[in-house]
Amino acid sequence: MTDLVFAPPSDRKSAESGTQLTPRFDANGLVTAIVTDFASGKLLMVAHMNADALAKTIETGQSHFWSRSRQKLWLKGETSGTIQHVHEMRTDCDQDAIWLKVSVSGAGATCHTGMPSCFYRRIEATDGTFELIHDDIAPLFDSAEVYDNKS
Amino acid sequence: MTDLVFAPPSDRKSAESGTQLTPRFDANGLVTAIVTDFASGKLLMVAHMNADALAKTIETGQSHFWSRSRQKLWLKGETSGTIQHVHEMRTDCDQDAIWLKVSVSGAGATCHTGMPSCFYRRIEATDGTFELIHDDIAPLFDSAEVYDNKS
Repeated sequence: MTDLVFAPPSDRKSAESGTQLTPRFDANGLVTAIVTDFASGKLLMVAHMNADALAKTIETGQSHFWSRSRQKLWLKGETSGTIQHVHEMRTDCDQDAIWLKVSVSGAGATCHTGMPSCFYRRIEATDGTFELIHDDIAPLFDSAEVYDNKS
Repeated sequence: MTDLVFAPPSDRKSAESGTQLTPRFDANGLVTAIVTDFASGKLLMVAHMNADALAKTIETGQSHFWSRSRQKLWLKGETSGTIQHVHEMRTDCDQDAIWLKVSVSGAGATCHTGMPSCFYRRIEATDGTFELIHDDIAPLFDSAEVYDNKS
């Protein structure tokens, strides 16, 4: 656990214009976390943080999230070695989202598939139909090898 | 309403590696939408989409969201004139998030405060305390004037 305690959400005006971090966690105790690459600015992933994950991220400078599927705190890169080092954190107007600008260590992949970003497919819509077009790049690691041999 | 109907979520492997758009809406029927500026790549806002908002965005090329606070479909910029024209859409590995690359018309502001981005404050953490540092830029419109005289 952490010693950091966040102030409760304030009224809308104060939350928008103030200088106090008062995260507006949702009914499940989560805020949305958006992660971009510090150098290129590219969107890498979207995840969620509870108060503990947010505090741990601030304290350690490494991205921590709350895994909704596993229902546990998650140090990003703990298994794959692709730790995210946080250069800057921002919050949005109503403080229900956190933006992390990071550099990724290890193989440099963010997605568990080994791709640099989780957003490796473009939605192409033509005449009422649409399909996903994959980026023409190779994964930076072998997902089966990284995850299946551990935990 | 729209004629577009999305296929239900498929198994994890297909969702990750396939070419079919099968959005994984959460218990509230929503996916996360991340909006960046098409030209600069900067993060502008985070919002949510239900199936109707996603379909409308694909059909019209203008960002539509589901307003959780107002519980209604929301054409972004309808009041302020800051319509978002979508240049590219992407989805992530498990298809529970949508990334929109847009250009913003009108005053060019994305945030309802008149700021170019909703993320106009940096979290600065020093020695166990932290505060929000505002970007030193002026709003692109007067929020009170834009919203208080309408609807």
